[in-house]
Amino acid sequence: MLYIVLAIVAFALAYMVKNFVSIKKMDEGTEEMSKMAGIIRAGANTFMKTEYRIISVVVVVVAVVFSLFIEKFSGLSFIFGALMSSLACIIGMWSATNANVRTANKARTSLSIGETVKVALRGGSISGLCVQGLGLFGLAVIFLINGGVEIDAESKGLVANLICNPTVMRITTYSLGCSVVAMFNRVAGGNYTKAADISSDILAKIRHALPEDDSRIPNVIADFIGDNVNDIAGNCSDLLESFVATIAAAIMIVIPVFRESGITDMTLFHAAVKFPILLAGGGLLSCIIGLVVTSSRKMSNDPSKDLNLATNISAFSTIAIGLFASYISFGKIELFKDFTFGWISPWISAIFGIVSGVLIGIITEHYTSADKAKNPTRKLAEIATEGSAFVITKGDAIGSRSCLLPILMIGLSLLISGKICGIYGIAISALGMLSFVATTVSIDAFGPIADNAGGLAESCHLDADVRKITDKLDSVGNTTAAIGKGFAIGSAAFATVSLIIAYVGNYTPINKEPVLNIASFIVIAGGIIGGALIEYFSALLTDNTIESARLMADEGDRQLSEPGVLEGEKEPDYNKCIEMAAKQALKKMLIPSVLSLLIPAVGGFIFGAEFIGGILVGATVVAIPKALFMGNSGGAFDNAKKYIESGALEGHGKGSDAHKAAVIGDTVGDTRKDVVGVALDIFIKSMSTVANTLAPLFSHVAR
Amino acid sequence: MLYIVLAIVAFALAYMVKNFVSIKKMDEGTEEMSKMAGIIRAGANTFMKTEYRIISVVVVVVAVVFSLFIEKFSGLSFIFGALMSSLACIIGMWSATNANVRTANKARTSLSIGETVKVALRGGSISGLCVQGLGLFGLAVIFLINGGVEIDAESKGLVANLICNPTVMRITTYSLGCSVVAMFNRVAGGNYTKAADISSDILAKIRHALPEDDSRIPNVIADFIGDNVNDIAGNCSDLLESFVATIAAAIMIVIPVFRESGITDMTLFHAAVKFPILLAGGGLLSCIIGLVVTSSRKMSNDPSKDLNLATNISAFSTIAIGLFASYISFGKIELFKDFTFGWISPWISAIFGIVSGVLIGIITEHYTSADKAKNPTRKLAEIATEGSAFVITKGDAIGSRSCLLPILMIGLSLLISGKICGIYGIAISALGMLSFVATTVSIDAFGPIADNAGGLAESCHLDADVRKITDKLDSVGNTTAAIGKGFAIGSAAFATVSLIIAYVGNYTPINKEPVLNIASFIVIAGGIIGGALIEYFSALLTDNTIESARLMADEGDRQLSEPGVLEGEKEPDYNKCIEMAAKQALKKMLIPSVLSLLIPAVGGFIFGAEFIGGILVGATVVAIPKALFMGNSGGAFDNAKKYIESGALEGHGKGSDAHKAAVIGDTVGDTRKDVVGVALDIFIKSMSTVANTLAPLFSHVAR
Repeated sequence: MLYIVLAIVAFALAYMVKNFVSIKKMDEGTEEMSKMAGIIRAGANTFMKTEYRIISVVVVVVAVVFSLFIEKFSGLSFIFGALMSSLACIIGMWSATNANVRTANKARTSLSIGETVKVALRGGSISGLCVQGLGLFGLAVIFLINGGVEIDAESKGLVANLICNPTVMRITTYSLGCSVVAMFNRVAGGNYTKAADISSDILAKIRHALPEDDSRIPNVIADFIGDNVNDIAGNCSDLLESFVATIAAAIMIVIPVFRESGITDMTLFHAAVKFPILLAGGGLLSCIIGLVVTSSRKMSNDPSKDLNLATNISAFSTIAIGLFASYISFGKIELFKDFTFGWISPWISAIFGIVSGVLIGIITEHYTSADKAKNPTRKLAEIATEGSAFVITKGDAIGSRSCLLPILMIGLSLLISGKICGIYGIAISALGMLSFVATTVSIDAFGPIADNAGGLAESCHLDADVRKITDKLDSVGNTTAAIGKGFAIGSAAFATVSLIIAYVGNYTPINKEPVLNIASFIVIAGGIIGGALIEYFSALLTDNTIESARLMADEGDRQLSEPGVLEGEKEPDYNKCIEMAAKQALKKMLIPSVLSLLIPAVGGFIFGAEFIGGILVGATVVAIPKALFMGNSGGAFDNAKKYIESGALEGHGKGSDAHKAAVIGDTVGDTRKDVVGVALDIFIKSMSTVANTLAPLFSHVAR
Repeated sequence: MLYIVLAIVAFALAYMVKNFVSIKKMDEGTEEMSKMAGIIRAGANTFMKTEYRIISVVVVVVAVVFSLFIEKFSGLSFIFGALMSSLACIIGMWSATNANVRTANKARTSLSIGETVKVALRGGSISGLCVQGLGLFGLAVIFLINGGVEIDAESKGLVANLICNPTVMRITTYSLGCSVVAMFNRVAGGNYTKAADISSDILAKIRHALPEDDSRIPNVIADFIGDNVNDIAGNCSDLLESFVATIAAAIMIVIPVFRESGITDMTLFHAAVKFPILLAGGGLLSCIIGLVVTSSRKMSNDPSKDLNLATNISAFSTIAIGLFASYISFGKIELFKDFTFGWISPWISAIFGIVSGVLIGIITEHYTSADKAKNPTRKLAEIATEGSAFVITKGDAIGSRSCLLPILMIGLSLLISGKICGIYGIAISALGMLSFVATTVSIDAFGPIADNAGGLAESCHLDADVRKITDKLDSVGNTTAAIGKGFAIGSAAFATVSLIIAYVGNYTPINKEPVLNIASFIVIAGGIIGGALIEYFSALLTDNTIESARLMADEGDRQLSEPGVLEGEKEPDYNKCIEMAAKQALKKMLIPSVLSLLIPAVGGFIFGAEFIGGILVGATVVAIPKALFMGNSGGAFDNAKKYIESGALEGHGKGSDAHKAAVIGDTVGDTRKDVVGVALDIFIKSMSTVANTLAPLFSHVAR
């Protein structure tokens, strides 16, 4: 069965390569476009290289520790995970920095929205297929090498004598490898992109009176690169991590569930352990179908419709193939008592995850878009006439309000999947949401490609007709980015809940029910402290961004004060700013990232496994609404500003007091949505994955 | 022993009456002062009357339901709780609206800071003594009528046949009565004061160019009244609720702890049940000592020092008397195994609570004051030169960062008290923090009295010398208000944790360990939904405040457009604005308040007790950092603005761009700290108290 999954993976990667080659073959357009794109590509590559030099040191050190003290081959699987994640990011970045200029050029040459969308989506699909394809590839390979998961396998580190299950440990360390890369990418990417963006804003709006994105501002190119660094590399590794962690959680949960069931025949065990990989493979196949069908059709002038089509085909195919996978796996064997509706139960759980994912996207769009009169963002734009204090307060209210429905969706899915299929059902529901992640990431990656294409069209002075097309794509890209963020957070919430349950199962002694008693003083103390850590982490990231932005603004100021630069007669030193952004981002990524890895480890060895259980619960419960708040208030600020800029708010156009107030909201939202919000979800996933990896050891040491 | 507590209560109330009479005897000053004070007093009284008319309807309805369906006398105890809480508020408001003008007049006649502080503190002490005295009085009376708490008592409602323990039910319903009043007061008070405040700001700063607090602005007097409504009535009922709920939680926790211990001799049970009341009585006595000593000394020119003295004497006396109470209660009897250090264990737990309370105050001061160079608020003021987006972002970072230490304090106290004294120790630790609440509230109430005195000095055009004194008091009052908010949130966190543990004990079947398994799908689903409710509730309160503020601003605008008003030739219609503020506040208080009462009730009957347990945990874990964030970011914004206004930021005084940016931060902070932050703590306490009241029924119905 695993070979079928590997065949699907091979097929996906082949399709990815085909798309990559076809993009490379396309023309880059005018010389100016080619030059600009080259700067962006080079800057992005330099950043990635420097970043991965640092990451690789951390990864190797951690890997050695794992192999020495935990399980001899776990260091290798850890490196393997980091490698797969890095590969997905690097390929994603290559494709995005090649597709951006070709998208702009297609708009220029074809003057057709549909044709242009095709190029951007093809570029995005490379990221999407890499994320799901490579993530699944690594898991399947480990599975094959391990010979599946054995419930009673035992192994230990090269020097330490702590017994653990190697077939599980290699999967969790693989997942942790993905996690570490995602953590660094998100933290560094957020700092990079927003330091560049905000410093450009300060220079343009506060210190000098320049138009936004003006090429005289030395920080502008760093801003373009930042979009790729954060929205492509950050997003790819984030979702790859969610995807892998969810499968890992599902596999881990099977062990306590099976032990408690009292069933002795191992057929069910092996079926339950393999089903997540099968479902994920089915999802990947569905995504290929969705992407192929969408991009081979003639596209309309309404990009949203085409992108939604890709999502819907992928989601429905996943449901169809999932039914088949469920039957193959569970159709003819003895089942857990928790499976209320027999073999079909895991499939129903998966559907709840899939539907939640789609609905969270719709809800996010409702709160962050200003397209319809009843959208809250429309009201945010209207209140801008009362000044920026009102904008911020109303934006805060929108952000807070937007948390309820997505979380209710997740809560209800948890309740129902749990009722139908026990805690295994929760993990499967989470996986359902992530099973068509290739399409989600493809559409998400469409955003920064379209954004860059628009930027290139502007800075290379392409025709107004061309810019109209790229503007249209950009605006669609903004919405898909907001939806993507909602999805990333929703899936992280789901993944983390599975990971927490798996964690409790991981340290619970054999034949005892996995219980984490929050009405005990150790767990509740951990719970409230976990919540506080999320706030602290948010503060750290926010302060880092402000500091980097101020430094970069000062550098930009210095350059603007050189004769000729402000007058547009001399080109500013873009590279200096690009280097600064990278240096700051890399300097500031270490503390938060390492903190998230150390807290569960150190805390667990000192205060025990239950305390860390509390920490994870508290951090998750606080991080979910906080991340939604950050993402959605930021999205609302952004689109309220755009709404006013479009001239739709009568009497208050660009440059009016209302517009100025909205711009302040947008700047506040920048840090929220692109730095803090997106990092919180990876923070809770990383902590949970570290805890899962070390859980067997906590019970040796602290108990 | 209870009679001794009642004697202390009588003594406290007698001292309170003495202070009240001595204030009433003092001169109100000039005719203008007397008139202005009269308007404030009348406005405050009208609001309270109207509010209590609405509250009393809700209270009577709920009481009838309780007596009919739950326990026949529980309706009466519910009304009794609401009555005690209301009485404390009403007396507090009377004293504050009388003490404000006399404080201003004392400054005028004595020109001595020390003498003026004495009047304001005496006024504040009336609130403080009422809160602890009346809260404790009601509990002691119920205790006496019940003949203590009986572990096996049974009773039922007048028409329903659900069995519950009446000796516990009457205590929880008493606590719930206090809770309901506090909920309405906080929600209505926040809306009232901030709608008035923000609408004045809009009129002064955005729509017209008037100085702040200018008497031509029709909304200004409503703003003065608002200070009393929120900071006196709201705060009194909030802390009274925390105090009573904590004692109730401690009493409830004894039952499962005792049952599990296997001890058959009831001496320990009765000692453990009475100890909280004894400790609270000892705390009250300590507060009297602290207040008497402080106010009978000659006061210095440094009010902070005198106020700190009162706190320190009260805290240390409580520790001393607590040792005695612990010995009396537990010195010579068989103890729970959890009591690691014998009879002294509960005392040690109490000390951890007391110390946490004091330290949280100090931490809050560090983050919200701008007095020292290393205060984060100083940095906030400095960044105001980069514009308001930076102010908001930096303020957000300060708010987030300020959560860690207070929550670590609470977490560590929970851990240590739990280790030393089991879950009973957690409740006692919480009570320790609240055992000297009379002094805390006295100092807290000092703030709005000083604030009003300053306002009166301004609007009645008293001498610059006088205003210097009231300004000094006002600035001290700002710090005490911030500390008071930190304390209110910290104590609510502590109280709610006790309530949650008590709740789990309440529905757990006899002879089973109280367990709330957060690794089960029902509980974790409740957990994340509980967190989302906190966000939703915040959104509701924020939106309500903005709406009311806009309506009031429009009314103020209408009046200012009448000929003569803007020119200062015609007095605006203050009363119209006062009425509007009251009407809006009362209209908008119902939905959030009723929601907080209904959610745990309805949810519990549909999804069962464990789901509600999850909701409570999630709501608490999210609300604690969120409330600290709201309070401390708001406090930091406020003081950063004041710091710039004081001229301390070189080159950026009042009216500068930096000042304007700071003003925007302050306005954003207004809603955060005075509406949302303070309401969140009462929200989690109310939900927990409702859940505790209904817990025995959930097990009948949903299980």
